[in-house]
Amino acid sequence: MFDPSLIPFFAPRGIAIVGASADPTKLGYGLARNLVHSNYQGVVHLVNHKGGSLFGRPMYLSLLEVPDPLDLGFVLVPAGHVPQILHEAGRRGLRAVVVGSGGFREVGSDGAALEAQILEIARSYGIRLIGPNCIGLLDTHLPLDATFLPPPGPLPGDVAFISHSGAICAAVIDWARGQGFGLSRLVSLGNQADVTETDVMAAVAADPFTRVLTLYLEGVSDGRRFTTEAGQITPGKPIIALKVGRFASGQRAVASHTGALAGQENAFNAAFRRAGVIRAETSEEMFDWARALAWCPPPRGRAIAVLTNAGGPGATASDALEARGMRLAELKPETRVALQSALPPAASLQNPVDMLASASPEQYAGCLRTLLADPCVDGVLVILPPPPMYTAGAVAKALIPVVHAADKPVVVALMGERLIQEAVEHFRAAHIPEYRFPERAASALATLAARAEYLKRIQAQQTAGDLPALPVDHARANAVLAGRPEPISPHTPVEPDSVMRLLESYGIPTLPLDLAHSPEEAARLAAQVGFPVALKLASPDILHKSDVQGVLLNLHDEQEVAQGYRQILHNLRQARPAARVEGVHVQPMLLGGQEVIVGAVRDIQFGPLVMFGSGGVEVEGLKDVAFALAPLTLEEADFLLDSTWAGRKLSGFRSLLPADRGAVREVLLRLGQLAADFPQIAEIEINPLRVLGVGQGAIALDARAMLS
Amino acid sequence: MFDPSLIPFFAPRGIAIVGASADPTKLGYGLARNLVHSNYQGVVHLVNHKGGSLFGRPMYLSLLEVPDPLDLGFVLVPAGHVPQILHEAGRRGLRAVVVGSGGFREVGSDGAALEAQILEIARSYGIRLIGPNCIGLLDTHLPLDATFLPPPGPLPGDVAFISHSGAICAAVIDWARGQGFGLSRLVSLGNQADVTETDVMAAVAADPFTRVLTLYLEGVSDGRRFTTEAGQITPGKPIIALKVGRFASGQRAVASHTGALAGQENAFNAAFRRAGVIRAETSEEMFDWARALAWCPPPRGRAIAVLTNAGGPGATASDALEARGMRLAELKPETRVALQSALPPAASLQNPVDMLASASPEQYAGCLRTLLADPCVDGVLVILPPPPMYTAGAVAKALIPVVHAADKPVVVALMGERLIQEAVEHFRAAHIPEYRFPERAASALATLAARAEYLKRIQAQQTAGDLPALPVDHARANAVLAGRPEPISPHTPVEPDSVMRLLESYGIPTLPLDLAHSPEEAARLAAQVGFPVALKLASPDILHKSDVQGVLLNLHDEQEVAQGYRQILHNLRQARPAARVEGVHVQPMLLGGQEVIVGAVRDIQFGPLVMFGSGGVEVEGLKDVAFALAPLTLEEADFLLDSTWAGRKLSGFRSLLPADRGAVREVLLRLGQLAADFPQIAEIEINPLRVLGVGQGAIALDARAMLS
Repeated sequence: MFDPSLIPFFAPRGIAIVGASADPTKLGYGLARNLVHSNYQGVVHLVNHKGGSLFGRPMYLSLLEVPDPLDLGFVLVPAGHVPQILHEAGRRGLRAVVVGSGGFREVGSDGAALEAQILEIARSYGIRLIGPNCIGLLDTHLPLDATFLPPPGPLPGDVAFISHSGAICAAVIDWARGQGFGLSRLVSLGNQADVTETDVMAAVAADPFTRVLTLYLEGVSDGRRFTTEAGQITPGKPIIALKVGRFASGQRAVASHTGALAGQENAFNAAFRRAGVIRAETSEEMFDWARALAWCPPPRGRAIAVLTNAGGPGATASDALEARGMRLAELKPETRVALQSALPPAASLQNPVDMLASASPEQYAGCLRTLLADPCVDGVLVILPPPPMYTAGAVAKALIPVVHAADKPVVVALMGERLIQEAVEHFRAAHIPEYRFPERAASALATLAARAEYLKRIQAQQTAGDLPALPVDHARANAVLAGRPEPISPHTPVEPDSVMRLLESYGIPTLPLDLAHSPEEAARLAAQVGFPVALKLASPDILHKSDVQGVLLNLHDEQEVAQGYRQILHNLRQARPAARVEGVHVQPMLLGGQEVIVGAVRDIQFGPLVMFGSGGVEVEGLKDVAFALAPLTLEEADFLLDSTWAGRKLSGFRSLLPADRGAVREVLLRLGQLAADFPQIAEIEINPLRVLGVGQGAIALDARAMLS
Repeated sequence: MFDPSLIPFFAPRGIAIVGASADPTKLGYGLARNLVHSNYQGVVHLVNHKGGSLFGRPMYLSLLEVPDPLDLGFVLVPAGHVPQILHEAGRRGLRAVVVGSGGFREVGSDGAALEAQILEIARSYGIRLIGPNCIGLLDTHLPLDATFLPPPGPLPGDVAFISHSGAICAAVIDWARGQGFGLSRLVSLGNQADVTETDVMAAVAADPFTRVLTLYLEGVSDGRRFTTEAGQITPGKPIIALKVGRFASGQRAVASHTGALAGQENAFNAAFRRAGVIRAETSEEMFDWARALAWCPPPRGRAIAVLTNAGGPGATASDALEARGMRLAELKPETRVALQSALPPAASLQNPVDMLASASPEQYAGCLRTLLADPCVDGVLVILPPPPMYTAGAVAKALIPVVHAADKPVVVALMGERLIQEAVEHFRAAHIPEYRFPERAASALATLAARAEYLKRIQAQQTAGDLPALPVDHARANAVLAGRPEPISPHTPVEPDSVMRLLESYGIPTLPLDLAHSPEEAARLAAQVGFPVALKLASPDILHKSDVQGVLLNLHDEQEVAQGYRQILHNLRQARPAARVEGVHVQPMLLGGQEVIVGAVRDIQFGPLVMFGSGGVEVEGLKDVAFALAPLTLEEADFLLDSTWAGRKLSGFRSLLPADRGAVREVLLRLGQLAADFPQIAEIEINPLRVLGVGQGAIALDARAMLS
C-alpha cells in the first residue's frame, strides 16, 4: 500500500535544494538547473551556507530561513554536514528529504555509522528519507526533475523506472530518449537507509500516468513484504524486474537436497511468480517488454499471425515465436480467401503470410485488417524490411489506423536503420511497439501472452475463492517439536521417527519405521512387518544415508536382514569411522508406483519455499526440481507438478503407469503448510515419497528435517 | 575448396547487365546505377533489347553484341525470357551469370520447370549460375556493387554476409550502415539452382579482406559437404550461422528413441560443432559476435576483468558473464596495489573494479592497462555510462591506445545513447567492439572464448594425429546384414539376435539372449544360464517391449520363469492382440553398474548421427541426450559424455560408484563406425547399455535396429 508519508516526494508544493551552487561544474548547480527548468509548478528554494543568488533566486543561508510552501528537501552537501542539515530540516518541519550526497555505507564502516546516525535523526523528526547516495527522482508529467543529471531528461511516457543503481538511471534516461520512448517517473534509491524499493513501488503504482513499472534490483529489503506489495500492484499494472547478483550466491551449510538446490535465485523466481512480477534477463528486454505492455491490449491466446513482404524474416519470426512458446495461428479458410483476393498469385497465404516484395501500403493495411478479423488470430507480428517499391514510412502511415482500431496486439519488426527511420518515428508517435529484429518483436508478444495468462490465473483464483483449510493436527506437531531438547547448534537434525510423526500430524502418510539395535532384533522386527524389508542406517551424524551405503533394499529373509545389519554398520565404519550409531531402521518394502522428492526450506529473505521434483540420490545432479513459496496455492502446487518431468510423468508415460497425482498435490500443500506454521523448521524433506496408483495415495518412505 | 569456376563472380573484368533500364523505377536502372557508381574498376556494359543509352553508355540490343572484356552477366529480364538470354550468354562465351529475376521455383510448379530448364541450358554451356530470384552480390573492397538495392551500400569492412534471403540482405546492409560497421562481401543466393551456400562460402573465405563469415541459412544443400567445407575454413576464419526453420521439423516414422529424439536441429548442431561453425540465435547476436571475432585477439581463457565507474552495471556484467560460462578473474595482489594507488579509497579493488563516478579518462586508461597486465586476466569488459564529470568521448580517446597495445580482447559496454555518441564513433573507427548493454558485451566475450577453445581443440586433434582404427569385423557385420531377406518395407526391423551379432562383430560386448518358444523351454534355458534371469518378449511387431509390459526382471527360479513367460504373452494379448510372437528371450541378469542409452540414426541431410544419454523408458521424457556426427572423433565421444548427466555420473556421484567411462567411449566410437560403414542401417540403438565398474567394461543388454 502507498504510504501517505511518501506523498511529499511525488507531489511537493515547494522544494528546497540544500547545497545549491552557482558553479556549473557542481552537482548542486545541475540539480537547481533541472528543477528550475523542468516546468515544475511548485516553488524551488535554494540554500547555500555562503548565500548569493542563482537563476535570479536568492540562496538562503539555512533551511530554517526558507519560506513556505516547502514539502521536500534535497540535500547535496558533504556527508559530514548531512546530520546538521537533517536537524534543521526537522526543526523547519520538513517530512520528506532526499539525500543525494555520497560518503555513507558504500565507503565502509565509518560511512555506515554516519548513515545510521542520519537515519536516527530523520526518524526522530518523523522525516522520510530517500538515499543517501542517489541521483534523485523525476516525474515527467507533474513535471518535476529533481536529479542532477545533464539535460535533457526523459520524454514524458508511461513506463516508470525504479533503481538501486544511480548509474543505470543515467544510462536509461539517455538511452530511452535515443530510442524515442518516454518515462513517467524515475526514482534512484541509493543506499535505502529508510525508503526502500517496496515503498517506492507502491507509491509509483498509484501514479495514473504510469502504466508499467520497471525495477532494477540488487536484492529486496524484505522478501515477503515485497511479494505482497507487488502482488497487489500486478493485477492492475505490470511490473518487470531486472534482478542482478544472480551468481553471488551466499554459500551456507545445508542439510538436505532441498537446501542444496534452493538458494537466492529460486527464491526470487518463486516470489516473482507468486507476485506476478515479470523477470527480464537483460535491460534491453525489460524496456522492449515495457513498451508492449504499456501500449498493447492483452492477447486472448498464443496464436500469432506473421505478416511479411519476404520469406526470410518470416522464417526468423516463426522460429522466434515458437522458441518463446507462441504458435503460428491456423488461418480460417475465409481469411485465406480474403488474402488471396488482395495479393498476387505467388504470395503465400499460409501463416507467415508473405505478400511478396511488391507489397504496397494498402496491401499491408488490408491484409493486417483481414488477419486481425480472424478469430483464430490472437495477435499479429508485422515485418517491414525497407520495401523495394515504397517507403517504409508510407506503410507505417497505412498500418497505424488499423492497429489502433484493433483489440488485439500488433507489434512491428522494422528491419534496417536509415531507410526505416521515418516509419520508426510514425510508430513511436502512435504508441505501436517497433523493434529492429523479428526476435525482439516475438519476445514482446510472448510477454504479452504471459501477462494475459497471469491475469486469467488470478481471476480464476478469485472466483475459486480461498483454499479450503487442510485438516492438520497443529497441536501434535507442536508437541513433537516442543518435546525435543533445545537446539544446541544453529542447525539441529531431528530424529527420523520424530520427522515421521511430524509429517503424520500434518496428514502426510508415512511407512512405519522400527529401530533395531542388533542384527537379531532387526531380523525379528522384519519378520513382524513382513518380507521383503528395507534396512536404513540410523545415525544423527549422517544426513544422506545412501552416501555411506547405509540403505539396503529388498531383503527376503531373516538371514539376509541380520547380515544386512552388519553390512550397514561395516559400510559406515569404512566411510565415517567416528559417526555415532543408534541402530538400523527396519521398514517393509512398498513395491510399485513412482518416486519423487518433496521438500521445504526456509529462505532468509522470502521465508519457506516448497521444492518438488525427481528424487533419489541423483536429485542434485538431475536438477529436475521446481520451487514455490509456502504455503502453496492450489495453482502453485499444480505449477510444481507441471513444470518438472517428475510431475508430468505422474500422468503416466509409456510403460510407466499413471500414479496418484492428486495425492502428491495434497502432500505438497500439507508440507508447505507445515513449513509455514513452524518457522523453526529450517529444512524438511521427504525423499522418496512413493506415489502409488491413481486413488491409492502417496507415502513418505524416508524423511529428514533440520531445526534452527 | 574454392571452385575456380566461381572466380568471374568475384573478380570480373567486365559485367553486362541484361535488362538495364533508363526508367528509374525499374530494378534494371538501380543495378546499372550501383555498378556505374560503385567505383568498380572493370567495364560495365548495358544490354536492353530496345537499345538506347544510360549514364552516357550505349545499351546494346543483345549480349552477342557486347565487346570484351566480359566475364559476368547479370540478368534482370522477365522469367520467360531468361532461357533465351542464357543461350546468348553461352554463345557469347560467358561462364558466369547472376539471374536476379523472380518467377521460378518460388512461384510454383511452372516456375520450377522453368528453373530446371535454365539450369540445363547453363550446364550445357558450362555456365555457373547464381540465383534465380536474388538481389545480387557486392564486394566493398574491389569495389563492386552488383545489387539493385537503393544506395548507399555498406561501408567497407571485414565481415562477409551470405544469405538465402534477399530481404534479409537489404535489411542487413541498411542496419549495418546505421550501426557503423562495414561488410566485405555480400552474396544473395536466391533459389540456388546451381551455386549454393557451400560453394559461395569457400569462395568468400578466400577473400583476404574477409575476416569473419556470417551466414543466413534456411537449410543446407548437402549436409556432409557443407560440414567438410566449413571445417576447412574455420581454422582460419570464423563462420557464424543463423539457421532458421528450427521448428519446421518434418515428421517421419521412427523406430527407436534415438530416431524420435534426433531431428533436423540436433543434426545441424552436431554438424556445426564438428565444423566449428558458431550458431547464433538472433541476427543481432550474429553481428555482435562478428565484430568481436573480426577485431579482437583470442583470449587465453575465460577469466574476465570488469572495469566500471558504477556498481550497478558492474553487477549486470558479472551476471551476464557467468550466465555465459565466463568467470570473474581473481586479480593478483600486485594488481590490486596498483589499482589502489590510482583510485580513491572508496573504489572497489575487487573484480568488478569500480573506479567510482569520478573516474577520469586517465584513470580509465591506467586501470585498463593495469588489468591487462595481470596474467590472471584473459580479457576485459569496460563499462562506460555517461560519466558525470567527463565526456565519454574523452574516455574513449584515452582507452583506445591501451586496447590497441594489448594482446587480450577488450570490449566496451557504452551505456546510453546521445551522451555516448562521440565515444561510439571513436571506438568504431578504432575497431573496438562496443555494445549498448553489458549483456551483449559479455556475450561477445563468451564467443571469443569459445572460438579460442575451438582453435585449441583442433590443434590438439592435429597433434594427436588420426584416431587409431578400431579393430572391427566388417565382413561378419556384412554377412549379418546380407544374410537377411530383402527389405520389403522402407523400414524393416532387424531380429534382436541379428542386432546383437551386428554389435558383436563391431566389438561391442552383448549379453547372451536365448529364444524360448514355451514356458517350459524358458525355464530350462534359465536354469542353464543361471538365476536370476530376465525375460523379454520377442515379437517383430513390438518396437519397445516395455511399452506392452513385455519385460520381466529378476526371476529367481524355474517356476517364476515359466509363470513369467505366460504373463508376458498375456500382457501382449491385452495390449496388442494382433501382434506376432516368436517367443520370449531369456537372459541372465547382470546386476550393479549404471545404465545408459547409445544409438545411431541416419539423418537425411547429414548422414549418421550418434546419440548418447540417460536411457530406460523415460529417455524421451528426460531428454538427457546429446548428438554428434558419426563416425565420432575421440573429442566428440568425450563431448557426448561431458554434456549429459548420464555421462557425467559415470565418474561417480554420491553413493553411485564410478563406472567404466572408457568402455562407454569405446562403444560410442564403435557404434558410430558401424553406422558410418553401413548406410542401410537407418537406426540402431542399445538400450540399456549396462556400464560396469571401472575396468570391467560395458555390455549391451538389449538393442534394436531398423534398415532402410
